[in-house]
Amino acid sequence: MNHTDLQDYSHKRLNILTGEWVLVSPHRAKRPWQGQNEAVSNDVRPAYDETCYLCAGNTRINGEINPKYQDVFVFTNDFAALQKDSKSFSVEDGLLVAESETGICKVICFSPDHSKSLADMDAKDIQKVVFAWQREFKELSENPHINYVQIFENKGAVMGCSNPHPHGQIWSQSTLPNEVDKKNTRQLAYYNKNNSSLLGDYLTQELEKQERIIFENDSCVVLIPFWAVWPFEAMIVPKKQQSNILELNNTEALDYAEAISVLTKAYDKLFNTSFPYSSGIHQAPTNGNDNKHWHWHMSFYPPLLRSATVKKFMVGYEMFGSPQRDITPEIAAKMIKAQI
Amino acid sequence: MNHTDLQDYSHKRLNILTGEWVLVSPHRAKRPWQGQNEAVSNDVRPAYDETCYLCAGNTRINGEINPKYQDVFVFTNDFAALQKDSKSFSVEDGLLVAESETGICKVICFSPDHSKSLADMDAKDIQKVVFAWQREFKELSENPHINYVQIFENKGAVMGCSNPHPHGQIWSQSTLPNEVDKKNTRQLAYYNKNNSSLLGDYLTQELEKQERIIFENDSCVVLIPFWAVWPFEAMIVPKKQQSNILELNNTEALDYAEAISVLTKAYDKLFNTSFPYSSGIHQAPTNGNDNKHWHWHMSFYPPLLRSATVKKFMVGYEMFGSPQRDITPEIAAKMIKAQI
Ligand SMILES: O=P(O)(O)O[C@H]1O[C@H](CO)[C@@H](O)[C@H](O)[C@H]1O
Ligand SMILES: O=P(O)(O)O[C@H]1O[C@H](CO)[C@@H](O)[C@H](O)[C@H]1O
Repeated sequence: MNHTDLQDYSHKRLNILTGEWVLVSPHRAKRPWQGQNEAVSNDVRPAYDETCYLCAGNTRINGEINPKYQDVFVFTNDFAALQKDSKSFSVEDGLLVAESETGICKVICFSPDHSKSLADMDAKDIQKVVFAWQREFKELSENPHINYVQIFENKGAVMGCSNPHPHGQIWSQSTLPNEVDKKNTRQLAYYNKNNSSLLGDYLTQELEKQERIIFENDSCVVLIPFWAVWPFEAMIVPKKQQSNILELNNTEALDYAEAISVLTKAYDKLFNTSFPYSSGIHQAPTNGNDNKHWHWHMSFYPPLLRSATVKKFMVGYEMFGSPQRDITPEIAAKMIKAQI
Repeated sequence: MNHTDLQDYSHKRLNILTGEWVLVSPHRAKRPWQGQNEAVSNDVRPAYDETCYLCAGNTRINGEINPKYQDVFVFTNDFAALQKDSKSFSVEDGLLVAESETGICKVICFSPDHSKSLADMDAKDIQKVVFAWQREFKELSENPHINYVQIFENKGAVMGCSNPHPHGQIWSQSTLPNEVDKKNTRQLAYYNKNNSSLLGDYLTQELEKQERIIFENDSCVVLIPFWAVWPFEAMIVPKKQQSNILELNNTEALDYAEAISVLTKAYDKLFNTSFPYSSGIHQAPTNGNDNKHWHWHMSFYPPLLRSATVKKFMVGYEMFGSPQRDITPEIAAKMIKAQI
C-alpha cells in the first residue's frame, strides 16, 4: 500500500459516513472540455433591489410585507414542500408503498444587503446567522411532529437558486431523509463498537496527516474529506463531539462563523467568481432518542470543475453507478488552501 | 388508505429497488419560477460535421481515424475514467479506505448521421444499437476482470454531453457501483423470500392498475415507476424476467427498440424540444454468480420540469436529504402518454 498510488491510478474511496463509494480517476483531469459552459456571475448587485421579494420592506408573492430587518430575517416558505397541517396517511398496496410526511419549511435571509453573500460578510455577521440557525433548530426540535431539521443553502443560479439575495432554507420533517438515515446508521454502529465518535476519530487522523486540511481554529476544522465527491467539496467539523449546533457556545459559534467565512472567501478567489454551491448541516435527529453517536458537520458541494464556467456534471455513470471525480481531494485541498 | 391522497398531500414513496425514498409535494407544482432558464436546443444539425470527432471518417483527438461506418460504431474511450491496465492496490489506513478499480470504457455511436438522435431513428435502426449493446455486453462479460457493465447515454448539453452526435457510453469495471449494489441486495432478498422477481411482481401490479403505464408491446412495458424521482422519469421493463439484455431474442430486441423509440419520440413532443436525459440499463453483474434474482430494466432520467427551458434542480435538500418532486408520477404518465 502506497498512498501516492491514489494520485496516479483509478480507485474508489469509501465514504465512512454513508457506506457508499466514489470513483476517482486522477489521470482524467487532462480531458479537454467541449461541452456546455455556464454563465459567469460577477454581476455587481445593488444593496437594495425593489423587485427582490427578500429585501427588507418589500412585498412577497403572497402579499406579506417583509419587516425592515437589520441582520437576519426568517419566515415560513411561501411555497413549502412540506406542510404542517398536511393529512396523515399510509399506503401499502402490494409493492406500492407510501407514507404521508409533514413538516415546516423556512427561508432565512442572511443579511438585508442584497449585494452580499456569506463570502462578503465578516465572521461577526455570520455568527448572527449561526445564532438564527440555533434559534430555529431549537424551536423546531421542540415541535413533537418534527424529528429532523435540515438547514441548507443553494447558492448561485447554477444551483437552482432563484433569487441572488443572500439566503438559505430550513426544511424540517417527521422522518429522517435518506442521507441522514445512512449517516445515522453508520455513526451508531461505529459508536457502539468503539465507544467514540466516527467523525472525531477521523478528524484525529486528518489532523495528523495534514494532507486535506484547509483551515483550523480553536473549535473547528475545515477539510476536504478523503471521500469527497464534488471537485471542491469541503466539510466543516467541530473538534469537540457535538450532536447538534445548539451545543456551540458563543465563542464556538464565532469560530464556526470564521470557518464559514474563510472557506467561502477562498472559494470565491479560486476561480475569481461568486462560487456556487449547495451547503448543508447534518446533525442529530430531534426525535428525543439518545443521539450521543452523532457528530454534526457542515458540507459544501460546489459544482465548478476547472473554471468559473465549466462545471462537473453528475450524470449518466454517476446517476446509474457511483459518483465519479477527476482531480483528487488532495490536489483540491492544496488549491483551496493556496487562496487563504 | 385512499390513493387520491397521493395527488393532494406531501408524502414519501419507497423505491422498492433501492430501499430509498422520494419526497413528493403535489401542491407545490404551482410555484412560480424565477430562477435559471436553460438554452433551448432546437438547432438543426447537418448530417455530417467536419469538426465532430464522432462523425464517420473524421480524426479523433488521439489521432485515430474513425472508419466510414454505416450504422453503429464502437471504440474505446480516449479519456477513459477506468483503465484496463491500472495498478492494483488497496488502502486501509484507519478510517481512510480505498481500493484500486480497473475497467474498460467505450463510446458507442448510434448512427453516422450527426443530425439524429434515438428519437429520430426508427425501431429497426435502434435494434442495431441494441445488437451492439448485446455484443459489447457479451465481450466484456467474458473478461475475467470485468464484473459489471454499465451502459448509458447522456443526451443534451444540460446533461453534460459534450458532443451532439448521437452516442452513448459503456463503463465496465471490476466491482459493483453503489446503485447496482443496492438493487442487487433488494432483488436478492425479495427473490429469496418470494421465489419470484421483484420487478416482475411489480409489473403485474402496474399492468392491472394502468395508472402509470405509458406503452406496452409483446415483450416490454414503458412506465413511470411509482417512486420516480425526476419529473418525467420513465422505465422500460421486459415482461419476461431476464437477468440481462443478452437474453433478448431478435424479436424481443425489436420490441425493446420500439419501446425506446416510442418513449424518446414522446419526450421530444412533450415540450417540443430535443428532450435531454441520462438513460442507463441496470442488469445483472457479470461475475459468474447465480443472478436469477435480477430483472434488467432501462431507466430515463430527464431533467426538464415544466418547459424546454426550466429544469428541476436536485440541489440543497435533495443532496443532503432525499430527492424531491412536485408533479406526481401519475400526472407525468398522463402527460407523456398523451404524446403517443
Ligand atoms: O464522458 P463525457 O461525455 O465526456 O462526460 C460526461 O459523462 C460522464 C459519465 O457520466 C461524466 O462523468 C462527466 O461529468 C460528463 O461530462
Ligand atoms: O426552494 P427553491 O429555492 O425555490 O428551489 C430550489 O431548492 C429546492 C430545495 O433544494 C429544490 O427542491 C428546487 O429544485 C430548487 O430549485
